[in-house]
Amino acid sequence: MSDNAMTPATITWIGDANGFVRLLDQTRLPIELVYRDCRTVQDIWEAIRVLRVRGAPAIGVAAAMGVVLGLQNTPPERFSERLHEVTDYLRTSRPTAVNLFWALERMEKCASQPDNQSLERLWQEALAIQKEDQEMCRRIGLFGADLVAEGSGVLTHCNAGALATSGYGTALSILYVAAEKGRHFRVFADETRPLLQGARLTAWELAQHNIDVTVICDNMAAQVMKEKKVDLVIVGADRIAANGDTANKIGTYGVALLAKAHGIPFYVAAPSSTFDLSRASGVDIPIEERMPEEITFGFGKQTAPTNIKVYNPAFDVTPAELITAIITEKGIIRPVQAANILKVLEG
Amino acid sequence: MSDNAMTPATITWIGDANGFVRLLDQTRLPIELVYRDCRTVQDIWEAIRVLRVRGAPAIGVAAAMGVVLGLQNTPPERFSERLHEVTDYLRTSRPTAVNLFWALERMEKCASQPDNQSLERLWQEALAIQKEDQEMCRRIGLFGADLVAEGSGVLTHCNAGALATSGYGTALSILYVAAEKGRHFRVFADETRPLLQGARLTAWELAQHNIDVTVICDNMAAQVMKEKKVDLVIVGADRIAANGDTANKIGTYGVALLAKAHGIPFYVAAPSSTFDLSRASGVDIPIEERMPEEITFGFGKQTAPTNIKVYNPAFDVTPAELITAIITEKGIIRPVQAANILKVLEG
Repeated sequence: MSDNAMTPATITWIGDANGFVRLLDQTRLPIELVYRDCRTVQDIWEAIRVLRVRGAPAIGVAAAMGVVLGLQNTPPERFSERLHEVTDYLRTSRPTAVNLFWALERMEKCASQPDNQSLERLWQEALAIQKEDQEMCRRIGLFGADLVAEGSGVLTHCNAGALATSGYGTALSILYVAAEKGRHFRVFADETRPLLQGARLTAWELAQHNIDVTVICDNMAAQVMKEKKVDLVIVGADRIAANGDTANKIGTYGVALLAKAHGIPFYVAAPSSTFDLSRASGVDIPIEERMPEEITFGFGKQTAPTNIKVYNPAFDVTPAELITAIITEKGIIRPVQAANILKVLEG
Repeated sequence: MSDNAMTPATITWIGDANGFVRLLDQTRLPIELVYRDCRTVQDIWEAIRVLRVRGAPAIGVAAAMGVVLGLQNTPPERFSERLHEVTDYLRTSRPTAVNLFWALERMEKCASQPDNQSLERLWQEALAIQKEDQEMCRRIGLFGADLVAEGSGVLTHCNAGALATSGYGTALSILYVAAEKGRHFRVFADETRPLLQGARLTAWELAQHNIDVTVICDNMAAQVMKEKKVDLVIVGADRIAANGDTANKIGTYGVALLAKAHGIPFYVAAPSSTFDLSRASGVDIPIEERMPEEITFGFGKQTAPTNIKVYNPAFDVTPAELITAIITEKGIIRPVQAANILKVLEG
């Protein structure tokens, strides 16, 4: 991440097409800065599944690189079959973020006519996806930075930062560019149960960039808004339907309702690859449900009775009417309506 | 707690006026059922401060018993002076729950003319406060039980149960009485960060009573409401102002806003001792701010960067207009307005 030296690279490809992937293991942050080398497609699948790499754009990049790992040393006559095995397998890693499916489709298309250059082409495509991701982050930041006025209070949920992408981030890119412009502001980071991406990752990233950040529990957001400390909310997205309904980390929908109740604008920042125009609305977006132990054994300690029932949806859907605008690398969608979405994406 | 054999007693006085207090240490639940004997007023102060005993009514009972401990072996000529030392000291344990102050005032009044029976009278008064608490719980349950229709979904926040009182609880008493009446319903317990009273205490209590309970993270409440799984919300209270504005565990205000957005009734259950008519509205209620480590080291493990800023208010205030009704031991206040409050309290 050349233009953002303060945050370590989330994902790096090491070597040539027969090389491997080095990931920053986000499950270990903020206590330890540990890199993990992935040399097989299984390693990448596991890393996506347990959230060593997470965030919709970063999952797309990791999956593309996983395809390259999965195709190394494959003889030409088995290449097509193996390519589909590998992409089908990676599709099972996480169901909600559409960037995963988008990246895998791109990879399939680029090797649809296998020859002895196919691995090289897949590798170049994965690197291209990563490079585009970095440029996309920067452009989202540039389009959104002026939403952050001097002296603002900003609330964010989960982590839509450099760690969620291979660049500057999406929601946090807007903050980084605003800071570069000399803007002063204060950020409240929801800790984001159960996996605490806000406390562990967003707080860490922003602190590394010397941005004023305060961690709160998710259930404190309403109080902080009531105290008039929040002028705008910015979050990322995992999948956006054709009408603008937005799937993002569980809790986002609640924050959007609280923002509306306090008259605070609510922004979503996401690249065009996050849009899934095949889904008419949010009800069509599959929502991943995760293991109860993420809640009852959060951080190595039992915090609920044995065998208690738990509900653990990983995402929720915020209806378009609660979203003030969506900031993409192609421009700002405002108001959030199907026609406007098409106009900006096709722009 | 004679009428509620399934939940171990929260607070028990052992012996005569020179005896001691046995507390169920709620910081150790649900993993360990550990009792802690308090033999000095300092022991009680510490137990209230670190939430070994918590919940507004239980804090009142513990404080009253703490006064007895503090006055044991005090010669008559020092009794008045020592009484005020002890009550002033206990007042510093926690600032928000008004039942603490209410119980201490009762104790002061009952020994305003010290003689050689004063300790005995204080002890009897503390036992009377406890007994009234038990009856109050039962009456709140009886008044409120019909709010829980057959087949309902109920959401609660924090713990306003047997563990928060010396009886059946306040909000949860309503559920216990509804269950006794043969009503079937399902409860969602917000885990309630940072100290997880919902996951640790409410889930444990309800499971012990064979009530269907599901733990969710605080940020999942909006999603569960959207899925139409919640027909009513019931919570407790730490202090209620003359106009009905209600201080309760942080996150309550947010839940009330989410309930309103989904058209779900929002009930508060609290004894008359929770009302503080000297406060015109919620802005006058002091809100305790607690240590950042409750958030950043919440699970015995560091979950945020070192030296990060944290905001940790322990309570928030829900405005009266978001409260459908308040259920007290004297009847139901509905709508929640100053005149109605006086009418029911003065009954």
